[in-house]
Amino acid sequence: MEYNILRDNERIDDLQCKGLKIIQNPKGFCFGMDAVLLSNFCEIKKGATVVDLGTGTGIIPILIAGKSNAGKIYGIEIQSQIADMAKRSVKLNNLENKIEILNVDLKRADKIINVNSVDVVTSNPPYMNAGGGIKNPEDMKAISRHEIKCTLEDVISMASRLLKHNGHFYLVHRPHRLVDIIYLCRQYKLEPKKIRFIHPSKNKKPNLLLLKCIKAARPELKFLEPLYVYKEDGSYTDEIYKIYSRESIEV
Amino acid sequence: MEYNILRDNERIDDLQCKGLKIIQNPKGFCFGMDAVLLSNFCEIKKGATVVDLGTGTGIIPILIAGKSNAGKIYGIEIQSQIADMAKRSVKLNNLENKIEILNVDLKRADKIINVNSVDVVTSNPPYMNAGGGIKNPEDMKAISRHEIKCTLEDVISMASRLLKHNGHFYLVHRPHRLVDIIYLCRQYKLEPKKIRFIHPSKNKKPNLLLLKCIKAARPELKFLEPLYVYKEDGSYTDEIYKIYSRESIEV
Repeated sequence: MEYNILRDNERIDDLQCKGLKIIQNPKGFCFGMDAVLLSNFCEIKKGATVVDLGTGTGIIPILIAGKSNAGKIYGIEIQSQIADMAKRSVKLNNLENKIEILNVDLKRADKIINVNSVDVVTSNPPYMNAGGGIKNPEDMKAISRHEIKCTLEDVISMASRLLKHNGHFYLVHRPHRLVDIIYLCRQYKLEPKKIRFIHPSKNKKPNLLLLKCIKAARPELKFLEPLYVYKEDGSYTDEIYKIYSRESIEV
Repeated sequence: MEYNILRDNERIDDLQCKGLKIIQNPKGFCFGMDAVLLSNFCEIKKGATVVDLGTGTGIIPILIAGKSNAGKIYGIEIQSQIADMAKRSVKLNNLENKIEILNVDLKRADKIINVNSVDVVTSNPPYMNAGGGIKNPEDMKAISRHEIKCTLEDVISMASRLLKHNGHFYLVHRPHRLVDIIYLCRQYKLEPKKIRFIHPSKNKKPNLLLLKCIKAARPELKFLEPLYVYKEDGSYTDEIYKIYSRESIEV
């Protein structure tokens, strides 16, 4: 069955979790630890409706489907080639009943999904400002990394539109954008409630953050303990191993 | 000379820095590590005009005077008894030429100090929301700890008013207020540029943060390495010893 599911340069990677697999193109943008950390950071109730904004190869919907009893998970992806790869990964995992990949601009997600209807929105958006250094704005990798097709504000405003009152928004991003993130979240009524910083190791500054917001919640931000990725000897910390082998994020 | 400088219950504490001393009332609010960390976090140019909003016993102006060549340092304190204590501490250290303690409401600081004129504003404000649990709103300790006489917004808006274009604002506060802090700073054109989280120890979540904002700067937040207070054996880390013994914060 797998013989015709791959296109040029693509390969199937094993997600080391309940037999889940993903199709990736090593010349394109492959998922990183950030997607795994975000999936693990989410708390998903049984039957929840989930939307992943800018889903890429579908890594977050697939991991959430594997680790929870979510009802329906939508993955929104603007790039048709990548959305197509995600759809084939969904099929490869027999998750067509659970995950729907929508090849649309996330700025138009509210034309397809009802506003104020979603339990959980997740996003691992492009981290970099569009800036001036981008040679080819149609380059697929650049679109995954830079704010070419959508800005942080597009992601946060759409998350807020789609979420129910008290719905949850989970974001992974870079610390240097923290001010933009917090300012925009509060502006769009997604109150930051829980934050975790990821540090490469104990004496290094953080290079990723995980944020949970609740729509229309009262202000008060809870910090989690820092997450360190590497031990001093360069091997992964126990917690990273634990996250990679965790089988359930259901609450 | 010191025999008549103290009132009931007061004592003189040695600041372990260039012979500096401070008058405190152990039954009132005594300065903590946060004030020392904030003073150390500031970068003060020779001749700079500095305003400390909510100065309490004057600990921050006294440490800055001791560790820099600031021009003039104003300490603003609403509580007359505490402002009086601060004035006596300034005298005790022979710093009358450098430090002026002003017994006024910080919300009126712009009636005394010119707007857009100050190089550096510092603040170690009350950390707690006014809330409902305050028994006696005239209690001096409660006023130092809770937002009874001023809110975070009062502090940030006045800092912004007093500072020059590109002037620096240094704040120490609790992480659970991070969203309010960042939102208000940006709203009042004090762009957060540098942040450092203080953790009791390596695997604990942070319990203090140090923030540097620059008025009207472009967005981009730089994280510093975390600062850990205690080692695993319960003794202070080397960095804490270094901060306590540091003699200059001049840049």
